[in-house]
Amino acid sequence: MNDEPAPRLRYAMIGGGRDAFIGAVHRHAIALDGQAELAAGALSSTPERARESGRALGIADAHNHASWQALLEAELARPASERVDLVVIVTPTDTHFPIAQAFAEAGFHVVCDKPLTHTSQQAGTLVETVARQATVFGVTYNYTGYPMVRQAREMVRSGALGAIRKVVVEYNQGWLATALEATGNKQASWRTDPARSGIAGALGDIGSHAENLVSSVTGLQIEELVADLGALVTGRALDDDASMLLRFKGGARGVLVASQINAGLENDLRLRVSGENGTLEWRQEEPNRLVHHRREGPTEIFTRASSWLCEAARRAGRIPAGHPEGFIEAFANIYRGVFADIRARKAGTTADPLDADYPKVGDGARGVRFIECAVASSAERRWLPFSG
Amino acid sequence: MNDEPAPRLRYAMIGGGRDAFIGAVHRHAIALDGQAELAAGALSSTPERARESGRALGIADAHNHASWQALLEAELARPASERVDLVVIVTPTDTHFPIAQAFAEAGFHVVCDKPLTHTSQQAGTLVETVARQATVFGVTYNYTGYPMVRQAREMVRSGALGAIRKVVVEYNQGWLATALEATGNKQASWRTDPARSGIAGALGDIGSHAENLVSSVTGLQIEELVADLGALVTGRALDDDASMLLRFKGGARGVLVASQINAGLENDLRLRVSGENGTLEWRQEEPNRLVHHRREGPTEIFTRASSWLCEAARRAGRIPAGHPEGFIEAFANIYRGVFADIRARKAGTTADPLDADYPKVGDGARGVRFIECAVASSAERRWLPFSG
Amino acid sequence: MNDEPAPRLRYAMIGGGRDAFIGAVHRHAIALDGQAELAAGALSSTPERARESGRALGIADAHNHASWQALLEAELARPASERVDLVVIVTPTDTHFPIAQAFAEAGFHVVCDKPLTHTSQQAGTLVETVARQATVFGVTYNYTGYPMVRQAREMVRSGALGAIRKVVVEYNQGWLATALEATGNKQASWRTDPARSGIAGALGDIGSHAENLVSSVTGLQIEELVADLGALVTGRALDDDASMLLRFKGGARGVLVASQINAGLENDLRLRVSGENGTLEWRQEEPNRLVHHRREGPTEIFTRASSWLCEAARRAGRIPAGHPEGFIEAFANIYRGVFADIRARKAGTTADPLDADYPKVGDGARGVRFIECAVASSAERRWLPFSG
Amino acid sequence: MNDEPAPRLRYAMIGGGRDAFIGAVHRHAIALDGQAELAAGALSSTPERARESGRALGIADAHNHASWQALLEAELARPASERVDLVVIVTPTDTHFPIAQAFAEAGFHVVCDKPLTHTSQQAGTLVETVARQATVFGVTYNYTGYPMVRQAREMVRSGALGAIRKVVVEYNQGWLATALEATGNKQASWRTDPARSGIAGALGDIGSHAENLVSSVTGLQIEELVADLGALVTGRALDDDASMLLRFKGGARGVLVASQINAGLENDLRLRVSGENGTLEWRQEEPNRLVHHRREGPTEIFTRASSWLCEAARRAGRIPAGHPEGFIEAFANIYRGVFADIRARKAGTTADPLDADYPKVGDGARGVRFIECAVASSAERRWLPFSG
Repeated sequence: MNDEPAPRLRYAMIGGGRDAFIGAVHRHAIALDGQAELAAGALSSTPERARESGRALGIADAHNHASWQALLEAELARPASERVDLVVIVTPTDTHFPIAQAFAEAGFHVVCDKPLTHTSQQAGTLVETVARQATVFGVTYNYTGYPMVRQAREMVRSGALGAIRKVVVEYNQGWLATALEATGNKQASWRTDPARSGIAGALGDIGSHAENLVSSVTGLQIEELVADLGALVTGRALDDDASMLLRFKGGARGVLVASQINAGLENDLRLRVSGENGTLEWRQEEPNRLVHHRREGPTEIFTRASSWLCEAARRAGRIPAGHPEGFIEAFANIYRGVFADIRARKAGTTADPLDADYPKVGDGARGVRFIECAVASSAERRWLPFSG
Repeated sequence: MNDEPAPRLRYAMIGGGRDAFIGAVHRHAIALDGQAELAAGALSSTPERARESGRALGIADAHNHASWQALLEAELARPASERVDLVVIVTPTDTHFPIAQAFAEAGFHVVCDKPLTHTSQQAGTLVETVARQATVFGVTYNYTGYPMVRQAREMVRSGALGAIRKVVVEYNQGWLATALEATGNKQASWRTDPARSGIAGALGDIGSHAENLVSSVTGLQIEELVADLGALVTGRALDDDASMLLRFKGGARGVLVASQINAGLENDLRLRVSGENGTLEWRQEEPNRLVHHRREGPTEIFTRASSWLCEAARRAGRIPAGHPEGFIEAFANIYRGVFADIRARKAGTTADPLDADYPKVGDGARGVRFIECAVASSAERRWLPFSG
Repeated sequence: MNDEPAPRLRYAMIGGGRDAFIGAVHRHAIALDGQAELAAGALSSTPERARESGRALGIADAHNHASWQALLEAELARPASERVDLVVIVTPTDTHFPIAQAFAEAGFHVVCDKPLTHTSQQAGTLVETVARQATVFGVTYNYTGYPMVRQAREMVRSGALGAIRKVVVEYNQGWLATALEATGNKQASWRTDPARSGIAGALGDIGSHAENLVSSVTGLQIEELVADLGALVTGRALDDDASMLLRFKGGARGVLVASQINAGLENDLRLRVSGENGTLEWRQEEPNRLVHHRREGPTEIFTRASSWLCEAARRAGRIPAGHPEGFIEAFANIYRGVFADIRARKAGTTADPLDADYPKVGDGARGVRFIECAVASSAERRWLPFSG
Repeated sequence: MNDEPAPRLRYAMIGGGRDAFIGAVHRHAIALDGQAELAAGALSSTPERARESGRALGIADAHNHASWQALLEAELARPASERVDLVVIVTPTDTHFPIAQAFAEAGFHVVCDKPLTHTSQQAGTLVETVARQATVFGVTYNYTGYPMVRQAREMVRSGALGAIRKVVVEYNQGWLATALEATGNKQASWRTDPARSGIAGALGDIGSHAENLVSSVTGLQIEELVADLGALVTGRALDDDASMLLRFKGGARGVLVASQINAGLENDLRLRVSGENGTLEWRQEEPNRLVHHRREGPTEIFTRASSWLCEAARRAGRIPAGHPEGFIEAFANIYRGVFADIRARKAGTTADPLDADYPKVGDGARGVRFIECAVASSAERRWLPFSG
């Protein structure tokens, strides 16, 4: 199922040092398929910690930097053939834009965490830069890497469900059901802090995943929305609960919920899409199944790696059916797409779209506009138009 | 678990003749516990069909009437001791008010289907009449009859979850995913016809169940809502899809979805209630389980008939744990409550509230106001206050 | 879906007085469809309790007897047209044979609980009597009344799965995980007492249900078996745990487990049947679903009351799809079959086999032979032939 | 959660070239945590294919061998400090013994696929060699790497369930429901061929996983068994279906099923363990959940990565709760254990047993004896003693 190609690509990581959560996930995901190796880093905003973290991960001192600026300078000082193939940005949101913009402007391929930037203006600038520089730019909306999400996308977009009428997406967590940020928890602290996270809390952190999942699977464009954001845990500055009604171009309706105060829930991301002929249901906590309720005939359960899945879903797996793949594998599928694109460009060719299957800078920019629109709708307590 | 008391109560049924759906459900539910017997009827608006239907059900000719007016007149002509104990109204919504009002005014105990009436003014009149006549008046919001719904109610209201912050309720069906009303289907025809169903379609038919479930379980009062109703199947006069955001008194937020165009779904009523300490989940299609996600500690699955359920939940069952009870049993629990109330009044006592546990005329009236508010919010496309 | 026919049949019940469990289930099941009414009884082996129980259930004193012998005598003293249509036997197993034999010999239609008798010789006598008297004789192997079990039966027997190769059936309970019989619990006491229950405990009580489920669904005949019975709770006289390997005529293999010491399990009856083309799975605790794993293509979930079910499954329901039916409804389906057979015979006709669909005396007799064979195999610790 | 230590270990792989299935799984699993790199290989029994496969995986030519003998010779020719740290054997079963024996005898640490060898005599020799050489020897009974299996192990062994009374384990697959070996399928061909697979088919391939899962979780020793093996697909030389009854030392009973002809099933490995106080259930296809039915109180669902799991389960994860981990992660946990042991030995210390948590050569040897015993019991059609 998997032919690990040689030679490995080389990547630099910005952020993701000790105590960070998401950096290790990126490294596991990249390691899984053996296609790339960590070659440089600026792993923390604290120089000493950056150095230590890099050493612990086996980065040679000459490539282990105290800041992203130093890393950029060092890379540019090398001949093009010796530079890293990819820069991975896993810092808190507030620094995404300056870092991503600088590397993209310098012609580097980039993978950046979501949300892409703090403002849609920043995002627009980045889109323009990436287009001008013709570089690869991936955004880790990682849930679209699940094989069964790709199967859902194929079934919706091929018309198997008929015209889509209703979409309900929820991302429910419980980890912020208490004021965890008051206990010194690092993840909670920056995610509830407007200075680091921007104008949105739960909406930005997980609501943007929900938006991307809907857009990716259905291809529908949100036309209008009315949102209600709340900081339900006393004293919290950003929303920890967001719900909204959606209207899509073409007449479909939708509901989106993103909430981090559902005590006892873990990562309950779930999508339901209803069309004229049937309804699809998928849940991240049971990701190897896709449920297809048909208007006529018994409900079907599609499972990962079956021979009757679409090509995109089959390519997204590594092991036989019935052996569960999980979060890291899905995350790795985003990287597979990025790597395919980079390799194709290095080879002077164009990647097969089924291989270069990953969320791009435009998806990231739409996500930022979505956050701005929902925040405004909630503040103004009314329906607002959205230009997807 | 069940001691069938003697003697049986006697009930009259209005509507529910041949080809009707819900009348047979009421009869099964009443029959299940052997507490009452069908003694009189006006089973159809077509006199001949009324007569035939009554005979098929074993109603003696002298008690088998061509119209509800004839039935009322005949009952009143009898000595009080020979009259039926209860009148069950299972006609389409447009006739609920005149029939219910007439019987309540005449001092009869009544069970009426939901939604209670077409307008909140009618509902208000009915509430006043029932209060004045001091009669029993049940509304068949039957889902609150499920034992595990009563367990959820107890867990929420006793404070086990802490302050409630978020409520998500959905009632998703698929049977109106096509223009079934154009094929002569009786159920579809009247439910999509404003003359019979009133100002709301899916909202009235199943959204009102969702509202009642939330109100019953949480005791929260809706303070404001913004709704979006759509007739997503071309040519339909009433909504077949309704979604709304809710704000409750005290700060909790909510989402309510009621939709009949989710092709392939059956009766997917599901409730999720999150409080400070945990989250409850219940689904009508697996009614014997209640899932309790705890903020600390493993998730708990409560099952029907366990000795560790609350008294109200335990009383609502008939057979040991692990033997599923279903829709008819839950429906029968509403009747158990009504019968307990009637028997207590006949005995000149007051029923134990855990026995007389059924939705009353006030619940029905609130349901009608809820429908009116949601329809207005959708038409005006804005948040509206609601006086629960 | 439901046409309640008139007039009602009249039945007598033997056993099932206060504190009995299964008698109330039979009465609920019979009441549900309104086809029959309790007209006579000998509800307890204690005369006083029999009288009280009968009165509480509304049996007229003239039909409320202190013993089954008195009931039989009184019935025979009446003209044939005034006798009950059916005698329901819900006593502990040790008295099944004398009672059933006496009523069958006297020409009464009978429904009897399982296991049918203590010995296969008794069962053989009963089969002979019923054949000679040409009476109706139902055995309440109630799980075969579930609509989805009937759907499974149709799918297996129609050849949709191809030749059957493997059958795994389990009935796991936990209620006897402690020495409940030592606490005075009535149900536990007689079920663990050889004098009342015969030579088998769990095997007889629930293993016989498992055997019947396999035989009913697959039509396969057990050819050989090796069993291992254990009394795993110290001091128990009868098996509380039974497992066995099965070989069927034609080459299929099987496993049967019946155990009452799985602490925390409720009524976990589950069946899995694999054929050349697919595998069916059904669980009693989620009875409205039948899972069909196909060799080629996505797994299918059949749900109760869909239009694409077989005729037998559709006839076995009362309400629309998505509204769960449960244990009582399934039990009532056995009675529907019995009633259809009785009504046909009263009318001098032959019932449609899809209506008269219930386990008969021959099924009960095979169940007793099965128990004897498994007990012997376990005692001799070897494979034994079985003549199904 | 994971601190990738430096420097990487270096491993050689025997087998696992192009078209092999399990070799790629081992490589993914090893890559995931970045602890080791593929440094040498003899990847196929066909020299040319071995060379090509090695190159595709980036093995330098000097370390890329045409046979395992050549690899062994080349390694031994190097100074000890330049040799690989570990030899991974992923060939068909028939060659496990000579390869494993040669490398263990030469002092190499080894990971070998299961079943360990063809005969218990070979296995005994290997156990002796490993003991004498004091090397690390892991057997990839990979399912014991799942965090929730380790949680189950802790709950059983700590006595939380009380004395264990009943164990039911099944490993059901469907991929051999047709004569796939006749179509040229490589996996099917060698697994159904006695020359490559030894005396057992399904029993050896997946039944040995089931045995290991039971032994690992419960610590119980099988004392006696009666097995029934069948080749249910016509013309097959080895069993494709195996069922057996087990008796454990101390009085517990068990059932083990391993079958590859359940058309439509994928990798349905499931374990149920009942003790005096409760019952645990785990399924490989939903590996992030462990269900704990309690005798008293609601059923509990333990999920991966919760803070209330045991230490062994928590260490076996990489990402937060609610983000599913799967087969590769579990497999990687076996390697984590092996690596911890190797690193400790290199450092001259002893590994923390919670880190060096992997199936060892003794587990592999018991698995081979189990296969021999079950094959004999089936052939002789009787209970046989087993010395676990």
